[in-house]
Amino acid sequence: MTARLILVTGFEPFVGHAVNPSEDLAKVLDGRVFGGATVRAAVLPVHHLEAAARAAALVDELHPDAVVHFGLAGGRARVALERVAVNVMDFDVPDNAGYRARGEVCESAGPAAYLATLPLAPMLDALLGRGIPAYLSNTAGTYLCNRTMYATLHLAATRGLGMRAGFVHLPLLPSMVAATGVDAPSMDFALMLRAAETALAVVAAS
Amino acid sequence: MTARLILVTGFEPFVGHAVNPSEDLAKVLDGRVFGGATVRAAVLPVHHLEAAARAAALVDELHPDAVVHFGLAGGRARVALERVAVNVMDFDVPDNAGYRARGEVCESAGPAAYLATLPLAPMLDALLGRGIPAYLSNTAGTYLCNRTMYATLHLAATRGLGMRAGFVHLPLLPSMVAATGVDAPSMDFALMLRAAETALAVVAAS
Amino acid sequence: MTARLILVTGFEPFVGHAVNPSEDLAKVLDGRVFGGATVRAAVLPVHHLEAAARAAALVDELHPDAVVHFGLAGGRARVALERVAVNVMDFDVPDNAGYRARGEVCESAGPAAYLATLPLAPMLDALLGRGIPAYLSNTAGTYLCNRTMYATLHLAATRGLGMRAGFVHLPLLPSMVAATGVDAPSMDFALMLRAAETALAVVAAS
Amino acid sequence: MTARLILVTGFEPFVGHAVNPSEDLAKVLDGRVFGGATVRAAVLPVHHLEAAARAAALVDELHPDAVVHFGLAGGRARVALERVAVNVMDFDVPDNAGYRARGEVCESAGPAAYLATLPLAPMLDALLGRGIPAYLSNTAGTYLCNRTMYATLHLAATRGLGMRAGFVHLPLLPSMVAATGVDAPSMDFALMLRAAETALAVVAAS
Repeated sequence: MTARLILVTGFEPFVGHAVNPSEDLAKVLDGRVFGGATVRAAVLPVHHLEAAARAAALVDELHPDAVVHFGLAGGRARVALERVAVNVMDFDVPDNAGYRARGEVCESAGPAAYLATLPLAPMLDALLGRGIPAYLSNTAGTYLCNRTMYATLHLAATRGLGMRAGFVHLPLLPSMVAATGVDAPSMDFALMLRAAETALAVVAAS
Repeated sequence: MTARLILVTGFEPFVGHAVNPSEDLAKVLDGRVFGGATVRAAVLPVHHLEAAARAAALVDELHPDAVVHFGLAGGRARVALERVAVNVMDFDVPDNAGYRARGEVCESAGPAAYLATLPLAPMLDALLGRGIPAYLSNTAGTYLCNRTMYATLHLAATRGLGMRAGFVHLPLLPSMVAATGVDAPSMDFALMLRAAETALAVVAAS
Repeated sequence: MTARLILVTGFEPFVGHAVNPSEDLAKVLDGRVFGGATVRAAVLPVHHLEAAARAAALVDELHPDAVVHFGLAGGRARVALERVAVNVMDFDVPDNAGYRARGEVCESAGPAAYLATLPLAPMLDALLGRGIPAYLSNTAGTYLCNRTMYATLHLAATRGLGMRAGFVHLPLLPSMVAATGVDAPSMDFALMLRAAETALAVVAAS
Repeated sequence: MTARLILVTGFEPFVGHAVNPSEDLAKVLDGRVFGGATVRAAVLPVHHLEAAARAAALVDELHPDAVVHFGLAGGRARVALERVAVNVMDFDVPDNAGYRARGEVCESAGPAAYLATLPLAPMLDALLGRGIPAYLSNTAGTYLCNRTMYATLHLAATRGLGMRAGFVHLPLLPSMVAATGVDAPSMDFALMLRAAETALAVVAAS
């Protein structure tokens, strides 16, 4: 089965950042077609409850064949295909509602973790083959990104949905690094977009 | 006095790399005009003697008002405006002639170091103002980049030339990171080019 | 219930390393008493099958109340209390039998992951309170360390054993960094030992 | 000529740090004998003018054969033997008098830089030979450490003193990393002391 509808999400900016490239990416990708699949995109709130709820509502509404969440991971140098979402919320900084989870579960009745069901290995091969720095990451952190990835995989598992799902982390934008003066890696938006297009083409064909 | 001719140099690829973005940058910039200044560009060999000799021959031939050397610094995340060149050659890897200097001087009669004479502070301000990650670096290493920067500043000092000179280090290209699988920062060539254009416009006006 | 017998394991040296501080740690800790708990220690082979098998045999033989695996994580700067073991084997380097797993499961019938059942939060508090750099890590990698942690937690879960289990990663020794010339963090063996003693005292009391 | 009196200095704690291992090191080393050389040690203020002035007064008073300044470099993983001091003060944080130099010179009539006159290569060999992580560093930064190293080398050069001088940077202490929660390398004080003893024995014999 090839995907016909892919739900793509980004996040709004969060504490300490004026922008979020995953938000811009979602907006640019909305309506795009990859193979026979159409992208429907949305921007999620950085909120410990509402991010997952909004993602679930989108799944209910759109019945996507695949869900690809995008988010920002300051400090990373490469596009990160997340392998696993853990049942832990432990926030280094508060979310946009000012809530700071400390060692909580995402879902009280959920398993320790879910593995991404996207075709990570061919996605990685396609990215590297096009000269885009990328890797398989073993941790999506314990903030909203992990929480949303866990929620969507939990939804698919508990409802028996056939949809594939996973998470892709993006580096900072060059302008974000320039604005702060920190010594951190960055990636141009045009390259992030090429990465997303490359990854979505693989998802569409899988 | 504003610059009328700017000599730009890049380097050929060296041990372990198939390409060198500073070479491509030099080729793209050759003939470009910034303010009233024309760029003449050349590619230097990665050779402990010939890099400096070739740079000196270009200075003799062109009488530039400013010299901006570009080179590659794998592992760095931002464009680095080098503040100082030291009178030391200590190579971690051999040059392209297979020579590996160990704790040698660049010039036996030269001073311990030269400070760059390019307008580093306004160059940095211009780069950051355009959203390009950049910083003032306190070490150009002890390989060919430092050696060439030292040689050109030594030439200017001993001959009493009015030309300004300095060195700009570039991160790896994304494709170089993708090809090796290392966890290293990178920068898109288009952004490097914008960085070079921004820096050269400041040099031209100074 | 407080622990009366704690099984501690280290690993033998593996590819590229002449020693393994976790091996030395296990040997030094064998027979030590913390609170009312006695430590029995063993050194595991760096082998994709035998590490887990040997750990399981030790559990069968000793019926420990808790299992604390120690291992080496070159490049890390702090003692890492691992939060999760994932059902993935993906080796960057071969094990000591020359086997290199690529994207395999640890246990074909096992869940995606297990969370450590050691008292991580009080262990971390105790370590930091004694001035020992430590943190909760969200990935134990996908090599032998993760594989062994997963196996022991799977054993406890499938057999319904009450024993607590988890994994602690150690930095390189200073001598290992000095020998290789790499720019990597290290930790003195005496401090690692103090870290282990501190952690085991918390495990013994929990 | 072998050294008979070695002046060792450390620094007091500075902005953001409760302690400074170089201060403790200086206190412990005062009065120690290495080969035929006696150590006289002092703690310098973190002050843009007084650090150098105090070091100069100590040189006037003690007429040392060698000066080894020690200081803290948070973020570094290894003992750093500084190769060069540059004629630049550019502070990322204010000194203890609240002064923040921005792109100033250390000495208006001074050269661009001085190279350390300590026997760096045999010092490095001795450190690595004893299993202590160490390297030759090409930048001592542009804060008080560099400023003090520059001042002492400038004093020796302008007065024609035969004394050798240089700077050794130390990592953070483990307790400093534990207290802040940052992901930074550290080194045990006992190992720092062994590093200092090893380095001073080489200086004494040179």
